[in-house]
Amino acid sequence: MSDGVGSKRVAFQGERGAFSEEAAVKLLGERVALVPRPTFESLFAAVGEGAADLALAPVENTLAGSVHRVYDLLLESRLHMTAEVVIPIRHFLIGLSGSEAEEVKTVESHPVALAQCERFFASRPDIRRVAADDTAGSVANVLRRGDPSCAAVAGRRAADIYGGQILREGLEDHRENYTRFVLLAPEASEVKEADKLSLVVKLAHRPGALHHALEPFARRRLDLLKIESRPLRGQPWEYHFYLDLRAPAGDPELTAALEELHERAASVRVLGHYASSRQ
Amino acid sequence: MSDGVGSKRVAFQGERGAFSEEAAVKLLGERVALVPRPTFESLFAAVGEGAADLALAPVENTLAGSVHRVYDLLLESRLHMTAEVVIPIRHFLIGLSGSEAEEVKTVESHPVALAQCERFFASRPDIRRVAADDTAGSVANVLRRGDPSCAAVAGRRAADIYGGQILREGLEDHRENYTRFVLLAPEASEVKEADKLSLVVKLAHRPGALHHALEPFARRRLDLLKIESRPLRGQPWEYHFYLDLRAPAGDPELTAALEELHERAASVRVLGHYASSRQ
Repeated sequence: MSDGVGSKRVAFQGERGAFSEEAAVKLLGERVALVPRPTFESLFAAVGEGAADLALAPVENTLAGSVHRVYDLLLESRLHMTAEVVIPIRHFLIGLSGSEAEEVKTVESHPVALAQCERFFASRPDIRRVAADDTAGSVANVLRRGDPSCAAVAGRRAADIYGGQILREGLEDHRENYTRFVLLAPEASEVKEADKLSLVVKLAHRPGALHHALEPFARRRLDLLKIESRPLRGQPWEYHFYLDLRAPAGDPELTAALEELHERAASVRVLGHYASSRQ
Repeated sequence: MSDGVGSKRVAFQGERGAFSEEAAVKLLGERVALVPRPTFESLFAAVGEGAADLALAPVENTLAGSVHRVYDLLLESRLHMTAEVVIPIRHFLIGLSGSEAEEVKTVESHPVALAQCERFFASRPDIRRVAADDTAGSVANVLRRGDPSCAAVAGRRAADIYGGQILREGLEDHRENYTRFVLLAPEASEVKEADKLSLVVKLAHRPGALHHALEPFARRRLDLLKIESRPLRGQPWEYHFYLDLRAPAGDPELTAALEELHERAASVRVLGHYASSRQ
């Protein structure tokens, strides 16, 4: 195995041309070796099985919120976040070369992508929507079938890779549609430019527990970027909190705050300390 | 207009037989007059337009998380939360009377319902999935078409209302699938059994701001039930926080804590003070 990032094999969820692939290329460059995996479960398994050196997983979308299934898998796995990347999600209507948007009668895509284009479908009640496993895979399907009345909803990269024609741009209901991905590695690495720390904390459910847990960070003026409570399955009145903190690399205050947090929480899992996306 | 809840008109999002209708009946009884609305936007508009006295809106699902669009509309509207209800989400395969699950080749439903039954569809790769506006509406469509190779995914209530046959139960991937709804009224009401307070707080983005804002509640041992940060659209580095607090009716400590919060936050919007669901 080479030590260059360009020759690392990176697993992502989806087929070639997926938004996750676009994120991998934005983060690591076009030279990266891409390993598509059909599900989040197989994505997380890919590194342990030796099929990939790294995995890229979506953790948050500005419209849909946190990807809870990925957080669940992060907690089950021993992978570490080592970088993040944010990409805009733009949906395109993609069909056969020479076809027209007006003649399209069937559109297939991932259910979440279809749900993010409700305004377009409301304006075209004649179109039948078909759910598929993957945005990019639905472009491949449409081109394979060769029926000009069929089109797919996917990102621009899928049109480029499979040779589809963009019939309409900007299908998404909301422009402020971004997805944040994290790069996962089997070992935690010391990232010199690290400025963001992600952790999952379990607290006893009693009044003031969260306030008490945040105090070591507030006292040291370590800034909270994200917080979210999630009920623990099968454990009523207990919660996980997902936290992202602004945390400069090598800051002794951060180490001290984390030590205090360990004393105040039922459990603390640092998911990673990495450089935040420039997006 | 009568003062009995049974004769109030309650708007919900979806068609007759939707999960939202099931929630309305669970909360208010079978006598309630139900007003179906196609979208969240038209649901929120229904009360102002005089088409309904109350509206019932989903705010949270255990798998998918918060319904951000509903929180956005709550902030834009002047409606008040006056009650909550939690229902389990169970998906059923519903087809024509006399048909069999094995002969089904096309299944239609709302994209989110389809996405929650991935294990079933993985076991039946021969089935084509079609996205529809509504779970219950897709049952009505299937029965109208009369093709035994077509079925829908929806709740049991939709099968009962439209006369469909349940071909398979428990299609959902995860059993712990619950949705929490809130009842919205044009006026805030004093609920004697109120024990839960929902609010949205805007804080300046500076270190310790959240810790400082929670302190008046922690000091008085007022318990936090839910917290979630959401970036504010078009205002980088500013956040809304959704908060739910355990807050007994008539507690002077709660009033005092809210007064302190107003001094510490850029803005505070109390969404409602209501009795929590017995679920």
